[in-house]
Amino acid sequence: MIGRTGESAQAKLSVAVVGCTGYSGAEVVRLLFNHQRAVLSAAYSSSGAGQVLGLVLGSMRNIEFSKLEEFEPARAAEKADFFFFAGGHGRAMSGVAQLIERGKKCLDIGADFRLKDPRLYPEWYKFDHSVPALLEEAVYGLSEWNRAEIKKARLVANPGCYAAGALLALCPFLEKHVVATEGIVVNGMSGISGAGRTALELAYHFPEASENIRAYRVAQHQHTPEMEQELSKVAGEAVKVSFVPHVVPASRGLLTTVSAQLTETMNDDDAFDLLYGRYSGATFVRVLPPGNLPETKNVRGSNFCDVAAKVDGRTQRLLMISALDNLGKGAAGQAVQNMNLMSGFDEAEGLWTPPLYP
Amino acid sequence: MIGRTGESAQAKLSVAVVGCTGYSGAEVVRLLFNHQRAVLSAAYSSSGAGQVLGLVLGSMRNIEFSKLEEFEPARAAEKADFFFFAGGHGRAMSGVAQLIERGKKCLDIGADFRLKDPRLYPEWYKFDHSVPALLEEAVYGLSEWNRAEIKKARLVANPGCYAAGALLALCPFLEKHVVATEGIVVNGMSGISGAGRTALELAYHFPEASENIRAYRVAQHQHTPEMEQELSKVAGEAVKVSFVPHVVPASRGLLTTVSAQLTETMNDDDAFDLLYGRYSGATFVRVLPPGNLPETKNVRGSNFCDVAAKVDGRTQRLLMISALDNLGKGAAGQAVQNMNLMSGFDEAEGLWTPPLYP
Amino acid sequence: MIGRTGESAQAKLSVAVVGCTGYSGAEVVRLLFNHQRAVLSAAYSSSGAGQVLGLVLGSMRNIEFSKLEEFEPARAAEKADFFFFAGGHGRAMSGVAQLIERGKKCLDIGADFRLKDPRLYPEWYKFDHSVPALLEEAVYGLSEWNRAEIKKARLVANPGCYAAGALLALCPFLEKHVVATEGIVVNGMSGISGAGRTALELAYHFPEASENIRAYRVAQHQHTPEMEQELSKVAGEAVKVSFVPHVVPASRGLLTTVSAQLTETMNDDDAFDLLYGRYSGATFVRVLPPGNLPETKNVRGSNFCDVAAKVDGRTQRLLMISALDNLGKGAAGQAVQNMNLMSGFDEAEGLWTPPLYP
Amino acid sequence: MIGRTGESAQAKLSVAVVGCTGYSGAEVVRLLFNHQRAVLSAAYSSSGAGQVLGLVLGSMRNIEFSKLEEFEPARAAEKADFFFFAGGHGRAMSGVAQLIERGKKCLDIGADFRLKDPRLYPEWYKFDHSVPALLEEAVYGLSEWNRAEIKKARLVANPGCYAAGALLALCPFLEKHVVATEGIVVNGMSGISGAGRTALELAYHFPEASENIRAYRVAQHQHTPEMEQELSKVAGEAVKVSFVPHVVPASRGLLTTVSAQLTETMNDDDAFDLLYGRYSGATFVRVLPPGNLPETKNVRGSNFCDVAAKVDGRTQRLLMISALDNLGKGAAGQAVQNMNLMSGFDEAEGLWTPPLYP
Repeated sequence: MIGRTGESAQAKLSVAVVGCTGYSGAEVVRLLFNHQRAVLSAAYSSSGAGQVLGLVLGSMRNIEFSKLEEFEPARAAEKADFFFFAGGHGRAMSGVAQLIERGKKCLDIGADFRLKDPRLYPEWYKFDHSVPALLEEAVYGLSEWNRAEIKKARLVANPGCYAAGALLALCPFLEKHVVATEGIVVNGMSGISGAGRTALELAYHFPEASENIRAYRVAQHQHTPEMEQELSKVAGEAVKVSFVPHVVPASRGLLTTVSAQLTETMNDDDAFDLLYGRYSGATFVRVLPPGNLPETKNVRGSNFCDVAAKVDGRTQRLLMISALDNLGKGAAGQAVQNMNLMSGFDEAEGLWTPPLYP
Repeated sequence: MIGRTGESAQAKLSVAVVGCTGYSGAEVVRLLFNHQRAVLSAAYSSSGAGQVLGLVLGSMRNIEFSKLEEFEPARAAEKADFFFFAGGHGRAMSGVAQLIERGKKCLDIGADFRLKDPRLYPEWYKFDHSVPALLEEAVYGLSEWNRAEIKKARLVANPGCYAAGALLALCPFLEKHVVATEGIVVNGMSGISGAGRTALELAYHFPEASENIRAYRVAQHQHTPEMEQELSKVAGEAVKVSFVPHVVPASRGLLTTVSAQLTETMNDDDAFDLLYGRYSGATFVRVLPPGNLPETKNVRGSNFCDVAAKVDGRTQRLLMISALDNLGKGAAGQAVQNMNLMSGFDEAEGLWTPPLYP
Repeated sequence: MIGRTGESAQAKLSVAVVGCTGYSGAEVVRLLFNHQRAVLSAAYSSSGAGQVLGLVLGSMRNIEFSKLEEFEPARAAEKADFFFFAGGHGRAMSGVAQLIERGKKCLDIGADFRLKDPRLYPEWYKFDHSVPALLEEAVYGLSEWNRAEIKKARLVANPGCYAAGALLALCPFLEKHVVATEGIVVNGMSGISGAGRTALELAYHFPEASENIRAYRVAQHQHTPEMEQELSKVAGEAVKVSFVPHVVPASRGLLTTVSAQLTETMNDDDAFDLLYGRYSGATFVRVLPPGNLPETKNVRGSNFCDVAAKVDGRTQRLLMISALDNLGKGAAGQAVQNMNLMSGFDEAEGLWTPPLYP
Repeated sequence: MIGRTGESAQAKLSVAVVGCTGYSGAEVVRLLFNHQRAVLSAAYSSSGAGQVLGLVLGSMRNIEFSKLEEFEPARAAEKADFFFFAGGHGRAMSGVAQLIERGKKCLDIGADFRLKDPRLYPEWYKFDHSVPALLEEAVYGLSEWNRAEIKKARLVANPGCYAAGALLALCPFLEKHVVATEGIVVNGMSGISGAGRTALELAYHFPEASENIRAYRVAQHQHTPEMEQELSKVAGEAVKVSFVPHVVPASRGLLTTVSAQLTETMNDDDAFDLLYGRYSGATFVRVLPPGNLPETKNVRGSNFCDVAAKVDGRTQRLLMISALDNLGKGAAGQAVQNMNLMSGFDEAEGLWTPPLYP
């Protein structure tokens, strides 16, 4: 078996992953391998219960021997102190509530605690929220924007991948009021792992998805309300966006192009300075200087989000572009970063491997 | 050798392709194989001169025996009556002028005759136009919008692929003044064949381009002025667009998402009716009913452009989406359609093979 | 709607496709569009019954209006004179029997009539053959090797895609006894459309199949016995092969590399001459001269099979390589070629469009 | 900047990478980030000299600040104690000789020291070896087979990617003499990163390489002689193989299928036991039990090689299959593993991140 040398002698945080055979859950498990302060102590999966994780996921053969179990909150509470939920929308609510009650910290990679307004759940997710009281407490886990609250939180809701991409690009400009809050257009282009490991639909069958480019859920995607919630907070006024997600023939990677009307004259250097200033202390947001543009290949397998902005002088619009790995900064990487913040660890612990290139 | 049965006894139009070893030129040659009224009588290529086309392009081995020659207008004029130019921007101007003078008809797949205002060439293409007088005469070859002029034209300028995608989706709504002329945002997502066969750059090296999503020439792409020229004509007033092109890991296919502010209340059925009405006589534009969205896999290898529109009621914006094959309706298919119109043939001649699926 | 100009006035063969929403069936329908002597008169699909084909398959929207029906042999016999079966192994047997009885001609793209020995069906396909008497009559439909019998046949069994690739490369050498019948190794590498349109398995989910190379059914693939049956016929003695199929991240395309021991000294030119001589009259088999090697991109969407051979002088083995489109010469193209032969049409009718490149 | 927590206080080995902007060199740099005992102290690149590595390779932006220099052995000797050469065949010879002379340890990822017989260089690589004396000393760096020698070596020659794949699958069976030394057939299927970052040829242009499967250098690939050299050593007699490499549309990943005649009866369990026994102490070779087959997706980005064997009882041949990442166990991962052995580190140091999945 592969050893881990040079580890610190500190006691490690015991971590459980609920839904660890999905892509996001498996990626959390992968990241924990490199983590010096936390250790996987329980692995839950309804589809794989009874099996060994390293046999269900061939990539982890011979290195990950956790026995998969059916998740049951009371029993789980005895196994770990920190819980990742990666099991799909609507499935974390009740478990989280019981674990919080038992003094555990929880990070939901899904959408169950992202929205403050419980009425948005039936509208966008087609379910009623069963523990609306927790919505108030939950912190929206975009680390670079809510770091202080995350550090103190018991419950953090990880952003949706599209929301992460749009917010990291757009928030700095809305915060400074240099773009209008009306007429914001968000285009997302995602790799297919975003659909999850169990989405065995014709649309994701290789011969259908390969060489295919398409939009979907046009103006109806469920990440829209969380974008608007956080944008409104940053802008100090209600913000609406028109959001169109697309699927392109890639596995990992999410590129977002945001377009907004400038409210004041600005050039590319100004836009860079604004972004650079805002993210000067942010390890995982890399601001590209004028002449450079984000590409998803540069962030693959990592927690980085590359951002850049370009002024369209002819139309007085600002184009803000971000690239992230939908399973990295868009899911598992962001989740581990939040765990680090919630646990008093170095924010980058377990996350500093460079992207896999090519 | 493969025979062609059932052909009509009519004399055929003799056709030459200049630049026929590039992707667009080769696609014209491919389409001519199925054409009952035209025949390839000369094939020009500077890189391949002296070789046989069917050996340069392995796909045409044993079926295409044309000897490639260096293009020289005076000699070429004796070989054919109709000329396709597919050799890259700035390379068709002088040849076209000499052939027009000799009474030939010309179709430029490149950009040399798309813009009416010669001042736009140095600005967007970095060259001065050598025969600005012909710009006035040249007809912009988007068949569904300029059919009557194309039929009478000696010189037609094929639209750029991004322009074709944006115009076919947006023009019907601008024409009816149901969207605002300000604040139009165009996002294009293209396969890599759009970069051409000779673009041996690192960015298109398979390991770099695979699994990579990126924007490029943000707010600076050369298809912008032709979009604006044609949109303005349709709208009856000056229209500007903010255009961001993207490259995704596909060979063929171009998806365009246009976003514009509605000037009147409209629902999805209204938007469909408007599109459907506009394109009722158009063989190659397929209007998808509400609930359906264009996908590039449905148009691969064909001259179809699938279009759909969706109202974003929350923001009062209209999303217009089109899918085409950048080498089909975005280049060679559109070119053959225009040749058909210019020559009095059935508009669909040689173009009615269904898309290659999957 | 798209017209078909220049068509001959001859009465057309009325054709039915059973299983026309799968990839092979849909490809037959696509090819019939360009066919001057045959016309689709009935379209069957159990999954799509009641719907219009052009709406089930978006690529055929607006151009293919056939109503899909549930296949029932007696009623079907009134609709067409020629039947393609593309519905999966074990599903054609009884229908074919009833149609043959009613005087119809049948082409099975599946495996139900490929093997002469009925005992091989339970062994390799896990079903018992219900009409073994027809196995004797059925002709194995590799046109270049059984052309005379196919022309006279009422029932033709289309080769499996891997078998087609291996046989076209290997048969010429076995026929001339220049390679040993022992120790033959066949490696096939296939695109994923070979798995069919309904194979919604995790293995073909885009994120799993993309960037993945794997072998499967090693030494157990069901195309093995038909390879051996035909090879033995050509060699005049029993031949066994060791066959390993692989899946690579492509949609279409099948490359086969066959390795066999030379029984006499031979160089690359000799090997070429032998291949070239054997296929001199064969439109769809393109023999590449020394220094050239088959690539699947050169045959995409076509009925071509490119073949080449190379002597490994160090080990005295001969490497025989073929490239075909698994849905073209490996399925639908080959099927239409056989229909042409069975119906007295030009063998290449409907099949002469050059490959789609790139 | 990203910190590295929990590091040991031990002095670190200073490491230089020559050719670090190529794919293999860049992957070594990436792996060193996670290495607790070694640190990058110099980075060489002729194409990038003068620039910062993290700007040449966008994936390393903000995390890798090494200034690229032109490699010059004498000056380099003052910068590091261990040298990786990743600069292409024929380019390491003289530098290695000068560094060895100065007491440095060297690992050549290229081919310059793989072959013992200097006459093979002009034959297979088209250059004469300038320091043949060092060929004798150099150890062939397949860790699982030459571990003891590697530990003592000053100069290790990393295996070629195809050789690694073939040897790890085949050596255990040749060593036990259960397969014949005649008639061995090796088929390799590689992703395109194996061609390198600077191979800007038409064949690797995305539209040409995507959806394309092809063989190349059939029976002529330069990894053949090293396979034979090592196989002969293991078998104790001269072994020849017939090797056909293929390129498939993937970036990373190499699948190898070896076929050999069994010399004794054996079933799948026997084959598994033999493999499992041979690799019981090998961290990075994962032996899959009967019913499982290697897939490249399970090793992506890692130093693992998955192997399995299957008996073809009908032909008495054994199929041996391996999957590795051509930049991992096929290049940089193997190189770091060798550095660990040469330096007395834990063999798995810096290499224990699970594969990137999906």
